[in-house]
This record gives sequence, structure tokens and C-alpha cells, in this order.
Amino acid sequence: MERIRIFVTGGTFDKEYNELTGELFFKATHVDDMLKLGRCRLPVEIETLMMIDSLQMTAADRGRILERCATAAESRIVITHGTDTVAETAAVLGRKLSAKTIVLTGAMVPYKFGSSDGMFNLGTALAFVQTLPPGVYVAMNGQYFPWNGVRKNRKLGVFERIR
Amino acid sequence: MERIRIFVTGGTFDKEYNELTGELFFKATHVDDMLKLGRCRLPVEIETLMMIDSLQMTAADRGRILERCATAAESRIVITHGTDTVAETAAVLGRKLSAKTIVLTGAMVPYKFGSSDGMFNLGTALAFVQTLPPGVYVAMNGQYFPWNGVRKNRKLGVFERIR
Amino acid sequence: MERIRIFVTGGTFDKEYNELTGELFFKATHVDDMLKLGRCRLPVEIETLMMIDSLQMTAADRGRILERCATAAESRIVITHGTDTVAETAAVLGRKLSAKTIVLTGAMVPYKFGSSDGMFNLGTALAFVQTLPPGVYVAMNGQYFPWNGVRKNRKLGVFERIR
Amino acid sequence: MERIRIFVTGGTFDKEYNELTGELFFKATHVDDMLKLGRCRLPVEIETLMMIDSLQMTAADRGRILERCATAAESRIVITHGTDTVAETAAVLGRKLSAKTIVLTGAMVPYKFGSSDGMFNLGTALAFVQTLPPGVYVAMNGQYFPWNGVRKNRKLGVFERIR
Repeated sequence: MERIRIFVTGGTFDKEYNELTGELFFKATHVDDMLKLGRCRLPVEIETLMMIDSLQMTAADRGRILERCATAAESRIVITHGTDTVAETAAVLGRKLSAKTIVLTGAMVPYKFGSSDGMFNLGTALAFVQTLPPGVYVAMNGQYFPWNGVRKNRKLGVFERIR
Repeated sequence: MERIRIFVTGGTFDKEYNELTGELFFKATHVDDMLKLGRCRLPVEIETLMMIDSLQMTAADRGRILERCATAAESRIVITHGTDTVAETAAVLGRKLSAKTIVLTGAMVPYKFGSSDGMFNLGTALAFVQTLPPGVYVAMNGQYFPWNGVRKNRKLGVFERIR
Repeated sequence: MERIRIFVTGGTFDKEYNELTGELFFKATHVDDMLKLGRCRLPVEIETLMMIDSLQMTAADRGRILERCATAAESRIVITHGTDTVAETAAVLGRKLSAKTIVLTGAMVPYKFGSSDGMFNLGTALAFVQTLPPGVYVAMNGQYFPWNGVRKNRKLGVFERIR
Repeated sequence: MERIRIFVTGGTFDKEYNELTGELFFKATHVDDMLKLGRCRLPVEIETLMMIDSLQMTAADRGRILERCATAAESRIVITHGTDTVAETAAVLGRKLSAKTIVLTGAMVPYKFGSSDGMFNLGTALAFVQTLPPGVYVAMNGQYFPWNGVRKNRKLGVFERIR
């Protein structure tokens, strides 16, 4: 089986509750714990690129994600990302990369908060990355969207196909 | 988007703890709750065929699942199933059905028990059913297996490719 | 068995995660759900006085809590409260009320977030209110503190006895 | 603060799900994890006496619990116990010991199963043991019962006062 690379960039997925300040913050990624919980047996390599809220993500950050996707040895890549700007990052990647299958996913509720969609989304992303043809996609709400046909409806908190 | 049919047959997935007897039992399926938790927006139709431990599943039960897969209007079908005999049911379906994409999945730990792989597996199954070519598959451990190339390793509690 | 009154004032206890904004907010109290989960069979009457972060609590709010404690028919009262100023509210009550057993409690992590101390604290508060002599107390960290001998150590996130 | 001894005897409290066999079993106690989750800062000493279903508990087992309660240095003792025969063990202790405050508690649902009453019950037991006069008690459903005035209503799954 071909190895899958997972790039971690932060996002709601990995947020935790700081009980001293009452604020949300990032510590380390939970993706490895989530894969253990899912009894996942895929060969994966997890690499944390950054741990930020996607509203804070800069063009330089996106450039770094693009560069790592391009240079990674793997041709199948999952990226965990904040949902607010995941479509923007997907577009940056989609315009430049066409030889690899890249699936971006995120969560509406932190994994640690009990009622998270994270496990479900990570499952769909890892399945889509194994089966979709080369291209850049966003996996949310059980669906996959091509990078140039998706937006987040922030009012409803769901992803929609455009065009 | 094409509608996906989900057939529920029971299995660990849907087991609950009876606090009066200390035993595990079946009440109703949790698949709809799980889809809500996953913020799933796929058009699905959930149909409970039976609620049994897969070690109790008879040839007649498998015949009924086969018949419902054959007659269902949908060409993409997910089946939740106990893991102990899911490969056996997959084989019954695989020998007869080739025009539909059918993905069987299950869980090692009940959804209600907190540490379940159910959300992850349901995510992978729903993604695989949208993207795999017609055929019958088992989705477990983040992977998909063709019906004639899978067995459960009961000692390790994982699924393995055979042949 | 004597009825216990539970006054809800908000606090971390009852905070929820708003998945559209990524912020914490108050909806309704979870105290009734928590009592159900605890299989609690005490006769209780739950009354929501306010739903606020205790850092926002004004002298008028504390006056209202004091007034409701004084006029309530019950002589045993539990108050759920944000931890940041729970000692301050306890002092307001303690200086005026001496004929009732009043136990204030809270949580460091919201009940809904999985890793909450809320269930444990609510359990201790309901036990202390049944067994302690009249007076005003704070129940946190498994302990009870008299109103005039407690402070929150915000650096460590724990309560300490003073004097 | 006086140190509290916690004797672990097993019971539903500490049961886990064996995902290879689908059966419930005992591994190690979760009481220390539960105290951490409750941010408990009481000085406690946890000692596992046995890890059994209380329906399997023999007179010899009860004799051992009695002996350890009698010889322990602490005068305040909490015992975690299966609910089915907790009243029987309480009676064995109650007839012999009158100088210490001993509180037995349990859970209807395993701590690991998400919907457990364990955290709540442990909270009440630790509070009661600090505040009740010497004697032997059962703490369940938010209440405390003297050892000679309690029975489990197995039909309803709750504890009742008798006499």
C-alpha cells in the first residue's frame, strides 16, 4: 500500500480549551490519537507544518504548504486545516498542482470537545485520498468538492458546491 | 448528488449497555445520530434490515440483505454490519451483485462507548461508496478490501488482505 | 427527604462551543442533564437566575442571588457559578446568611467538552449541602471551603484555603 | 487535611470493553484517572483489593475488605464496589466497624462508556466521607444510606431506603 502524507496546519480540529484562561489554544496535533481511535492501519506520515487558526493564515503560510506538497515524496496527501479559509488554500494548491491527489479537511468542533465531526471528516478524507484521481479537493460534510467549486457557507456552517 | 442507501444490520456499531443487566443489547440504530454528528449532508436513506450480532446471522438473513441490495433503487449502498462475519456477508453479495457499489463497514467498539472507531469507519465507508467502481467492498481500518480478498484477524482485531 | 434548591448562574459549567463563530457562549443550563446522567434521585428544584460569565457578574447580580437565597423556601441550596469570582459571591452571601446551608460550585472545563470536572463537582456540592451545618461554602477540587477562607489560585487553576 | 483511603474492589465502575471478544472485563482501576478529571486535591491513597464483579464476591472477599478497613491507618474510607451486592458488603462492615466513616459507592455504567454515573457518585462519596459521622454508608443516586437501611431495586436500577 502506498504511503499517505498528512500535513497538519491547525484549525478547529486541533484546538483545545485552556482551563486557566477560558480560551481556545493549540498545543500538539490530535491526528495521531484520532488515527489510533479509528484503528487506522494505513501507512501514514504525519507532519505538522504550522498550528494556527486559518483566519491567521498568510500567503507565506500557503506558500509553505504548496512547497511541501510539491516536494513530498508521496503522491497522496491529506491536509488538516481550519474551515474558514480551507477553500482559499485549496485554490492556491489547485492552481499549481495537478499530479497528486490532495484532500483538505477540517472540523467544525474541536476533536477534544466530544461532539466533534473530526473523526468522521478524517475518515472521509483518508478514503477520498485513496480513490480520487489526481487533483485538489476539500472533504467536508461527507462530500468531496473540487478546489475550484467549493465555498464555506459561514451562516449555516456547511460547505457548498459553486458553479 | 446521487442518493446513497444505508442498510443497518446491527453489529457492535449499534450495541448499547443495559445498566439493569450489565449486558450489551440492541435498541435502535445510531447511524442517524452519527451522521448528524458528522454534519453529513449527503442524501441518504437509512433502512434497518435487522439488529443482530453478526455471529447470529443466518443464511436467510444474508439472503434478505442480498435481495434488498438487488432491489434497492440506489446504485450506491453502505451496510453496517458486525465485524465477525462481515467478510462472509460481503462474499454472498459479491458473488451475485456486480452493477452496484456496495461498502460494508462495522466497528470494534460500540458508538455509545466513547472510544469507538464507528465515526471514522462510517466516514470512510461513505467516501468509498461515492468513489469506488461497482463491486462489493469491506471498509475497515481506514482501508477498503474487495469482497474476495479480506478476512478478519480475530486475534489482532484488524482486517487483512488475503491472496 | 428535604428538597434542595439549585440556583444556576452560568459559568464555565454551562458554556458551549458555537461552531459558527468559534466562540464560547451560553444557551440553557446542563444541570438537569447532569443530574440525569448521575442517576440523581434527590428532590431538587432547578432555577436559572442568570447565565453569565462570573467575570461579568455585578453587585446587582450578587444582590439578586442573595435575595433569592434568603427568600427560597428551601434551607439547602446549591449554586452553580463561574470559578473566577465564586469566592466573591460566597462572601456576599456569607456575610448575610447564616441559617441555611449554601454550597457554591463550578467547573474548570465546560460539561459539554468531555474532559469536564463538572459532574464530579456537582456530586460533591450536592453531598456537602446535605451534610454540612448552616453556612456558606465553596465546593471545588473535592473539598469544601468556608466562604471566608477560600480563594482561587488562578495560576494553578485550583482553590486554596486562606487564613 | 486528613488523608482518605480508597479501596477498589472492581464493579461496573471499572469494567472495560474487550474489543476482541466483545465482552466486559477488568484491567486496572480508573479511580486515579477519575480523580484527575475531577481536579481532586484531597490527599488520598488508592489501594486495589480485588477487581471483580460484585456478584462473584465471596464471604472471604468481604472478610478481606473488613480486615483492611479495620487495619487501615485512615479513619475515612471510600470503597468502590459493584452495585449488585454493595448493600451486603456494607452490612458486613457495618456490623463490626463503628469508629470510622466508611462510604461505599459504585456505578450503573462503566466510567469508560461515556454515559457513566461514576464521576458523580465518586464526587458524592468523597464529600460524604468528609462530613458524615462514623458509620458505614452507601452513596448512590446523590444520596447516602446507612448500611442497615438500604437495598438496590434491581428492577429500577436505583437504591432505596428500607425501614
